[in-house]
Amino acid sequence: MKHLLKVSDLTKEEILDLIETAVKLKRLKQEGTSHKYLPDKSLGMIFQKPSTRTRLGFELGIFELGGKAVFFDNQSIQLGRGESVQDTVRVFSRFVDAIVIRTFAQATVEKMAIYSSVPIINALTEYSHPCQILSDFMTVSELKGNDFENLKLCYVGPGNSIANSLIVGCTLLGMRFSIACQQDYLPSKSVIAFAQQNQGKLLVTNDIRAAANGSDIIYTAPFGQQKDVDEELLSKFQLNEDVLSYCKPDVKVLHCLPAFKGKEITEDVFEKHADEIFLQAENRLHMEKAVLIKLLGGNNAI
Amino acid sequence: MKHLLKVSDLTKEEILDLIETAVKLKRLKQEGTSHKYLPDKSLGMIFQKPSTRTRLGFELGIFELGGKAVFFDNQSIQLGRGESVQDTVRVFSRFVDAIVIRTFAQATVEKMAIYSSVPIINALTEYSHPCQILSDFMTVSELKGNDFENLKLCYVGPGNSIANSLIVGCTLLGMRFSIACQQDYLPSKSVIAFAQQNQGKLLVTNDIRAAANGSDIIYTAPFGQQKDVDEELLSKFQLNEDVLSYCKPDVKVLHCLPAFKGKEITEDVFEKHADEIFLQAENRLHMEKAVLIKLLGGNNAI
Amino acid sequence: MKHLLKVSDLTKEEILDLIETAVKLKRLKQEGTSHKYLPDKSLGMIFQKPSTRTRLGFELGIFELGGKAVFFDNQSIQLGRGESVQDTVRVFSRFVDAIVIRTFAQATVEKMAIYSSVPIINALTEYSHPCQILSDFMTVSELKGNDFENLKLCYVGPGNSIANSLIVGCTLLGMRFSIACQQDYLPSKSVIAFAQQNQGKLLVTNDIRAAANGSDIIYTAPFGQQKDVDEELLSKFQLNEDVLSYCKPDVKVLHCLPAFKGKEITEDVFEKHADEIFLQAENRLHMEKAVLIKLLGGNNAI
Repeated sequence: MKHLLKVSDLTKEEILDLIETAVKLKRLKQEGTSHKYLPDKSLGMIFQKPSTRTRLGFELGIFELGGKAVFFDNQSIQLGRGESVQDTVRVFSRFVDAIVIRTFAQATVEKMAIYSSVPIINALTEYSHPCQILSDFMTVSELKGNDFENLKLCYVGPGNSIANSLIVGCTLLGMRFSIACQQDYLPSKSVIAFAQQNQGKLLVTNDIRAAANGSDIIYTAPFGQQKDVDEELLSKFQLNEDVLSYCKPDVKVLHCLPAFKGKEITEDVFEKHADEIFLQAENRLHMEKAVLIKLLGGNNAI
Repeated sequence: MKHLLKVSDLTKEEILDLIETAVKLKRLKQEGTSHKYLPDKSLGMIFQKPSTRTRLGFELGIFELGGKAVFFDNQSIQLGRGESVQDTVRVFSRFVDAIVIRTFAQATVEKMAIYSSVPIINALTEYSHPCQILSDFMTVSELKGNDFENLKLCYVGPGNSIANSLIVGCTLLGMRFSIACQQDYLPSKSVIAFAQQNQGKLLVTNDIRAAANGSDIIYTAPFGQQKDVDEELLSKFQLNEDVLSYCKPDVKVLHCLPAFKGKEITEDVFEKHADEIFLQAENRLHMEKAVLIKLLGGNNAI
Repeated sequence: MKHLLKVSDLTKEEILDLIETAVKLKRLKQEGTSHKYLPDKSLGMIFQKPSTRTRLGFELGIFELGGKAVFFDNQSIQLGRGESVQDTVRVFSRFVDAIVIRTFAQATVEKMAIYSSVPIINALTEYSHPCQILSDFMTVSELKGNDFENLKLCYVGPGNSIANSLIVGCTLLGMRFSIACQQDYLPSKSVIAFAQQNQGKLLVTNDIRAAANGSDIIYTAPFGQQKDVDEELLSKFQLNEDVLSYCKPDVKVLHCLPAFKGKEITEDVFEKHADEIFLQAENRLHMEKAVLIKLLGGNNAI
């Protein structure tokens, strides 16, 4: 693993290894054991969109590992306007040990990797969100164990970067995956093709009950945020007690946050499963530290 | 002390203990003695209004104690818009060891404390500014000694969060307190009631000379900043040599800054007392470190 | 050296000493040797204009030396509006060990030095950019050796802070210097006078070939960035293969970045000399660390 640009850059073994490393780092932190595996390492963070969890995860993560992040928001660096992406990357490569980038187009991240002499970490594009879904699989393993091949994950919501990333991740882990989404916002064709080529156990449907049926994990995203969101759509794809009744009785609920309660998820379902959802948020920290160690510290680091 | 939401959360003993701790921390820093009492601890700073002194105090304070702050301005987190206050707090609680919040309504800070599993520190609301006035009492003790019951503090200016906090603090410390302010911007009724219920030695008046009379400390705030500020009002409540002549001869002058010279304070008075005023600013650092230690390190820390 | 306000504050010996220190610090970093010469020191960074390289250089520089920067952008501190420059400086002096300032007028920086009790570092004004050109001379010494008196540097572009700083620096080092610029944007008269009073070997011309003739180093700046930039002007002062043919065969190319390729420099020339240009960018880090050590650590630090 040289960069982390998208989930399909990873193998099943690498995902399991990252989860194991993240779990170890979490234990070290909980015990209060110092774990400065990356002393004096530095991170350039270029964020064209706001972020709470990802900023906290990487800024605190590199600090807890002994290093330092420098954070640039969209006012501070107008990536590609003014200075070209190639030049910005070549400059950062001279100063920092890795670059975390949150931007719009996946092509920007891929281009950065070409010109960078240090690892590039995708912290969200419109196509992929690998740091999020790696944390999510860590959360699944904590809640349901590591026997991914016998688990079913259902995602409810638009076919966005989360859906794309989950499809690829579930395919790699051999996990059953269903997505309930509207016909006009399907996941990317390339991830559907990836699942088909790799024996992915994938169901894409607009019937939320069919998708939910027998799920161990049900997952939604902040699609209630959109301004012109269609009320009929929200009612069709809302995560509520009725939908949960089609899942397994001990189903766990995930939400990548921020949540719009009463929109994509009812307040009742959210609050009943809040411990799971905030555990998922916290795991961002541990997983992002694991990613940094794998990219910067080599395999011997931990 | 679990949170620091407002001055009335504190007892006299806690205030004196904080001052003692802050003085110790100041001496350690001046001697160049490392004092990393909070290694690896982290601070989430959510600031909906700009800040110079408070940012420097907490960001450098946690660093000097061995920890790390992540700072979010109003562009980075739109508290309560998008994500609810409850959820933001529950997320931060999973990442950081304490939250420093500068916002508008005191109710927001109180609500955060309900949902937070880590200490909440009020770094200014429209009602209270406990970090400021704790530093101010530390400054009083350095300039005038610890015999608060025999000191008189006069505050000149609007009945804002500074006035509110000083009334409660002086009441707790048994210090005589007068406030010269206009009738249409009185301190909060709840702090007046607090003073009355606790034998506070309080005078509220619109006669600045009566308020200043016999003061050991005279204190003003940046009320000359307001755009539509009334020139007549400024002349009535300006801190100038005439007003000082009613105080004790060795009166000390405080100003929580920024200062608008020629407005709420004359340039002469400001410059003659600049050492006191910038000492007051510096003490923010030492006091905010003391607050962090009391909240995060327990009583054994120092 | 108490502050670093402009290049003419320095002597030849101080420049050579800074280069030597920066080279040592670079070697220590490359070897992976910890070099925390400024433990617990803090830096206030006040930037009224955006910055990539300078921010990375100082924020990472002070971190690698064991200290901490607090960064304020133009939204966070509106220098001189609200609070006066004098008061802002006096407040910062109480919190931090040095202040790095990027602003418009040189007069602001000079005024800050009067009121500050800690070192002030000019990180770019319209008049001077000492941190940039100190790094540039370090780069010259790495590319061409330290025999500055037998080297010629040609600068192509407007008579801005870079031109001003190079003129003074070359004069101090006894280096031959030519500048090709338009007649209506000449360097500051005071730096021309400085060169004349100190036997500077200076040529100012609007003939780019005459300026380039026999150069060891040719240097340009992002003047293609300007919105209303004159196409004829760009073609007359563009750094291209034709201009390079007048330089020495082993000429090295510098550019302080960001580059506007096809404007002030051709893509071909830029890419052929990219290693030199990004070396120059990287050296900002090492030189800014050297500046911090000289200002904060005294002569014994390294």
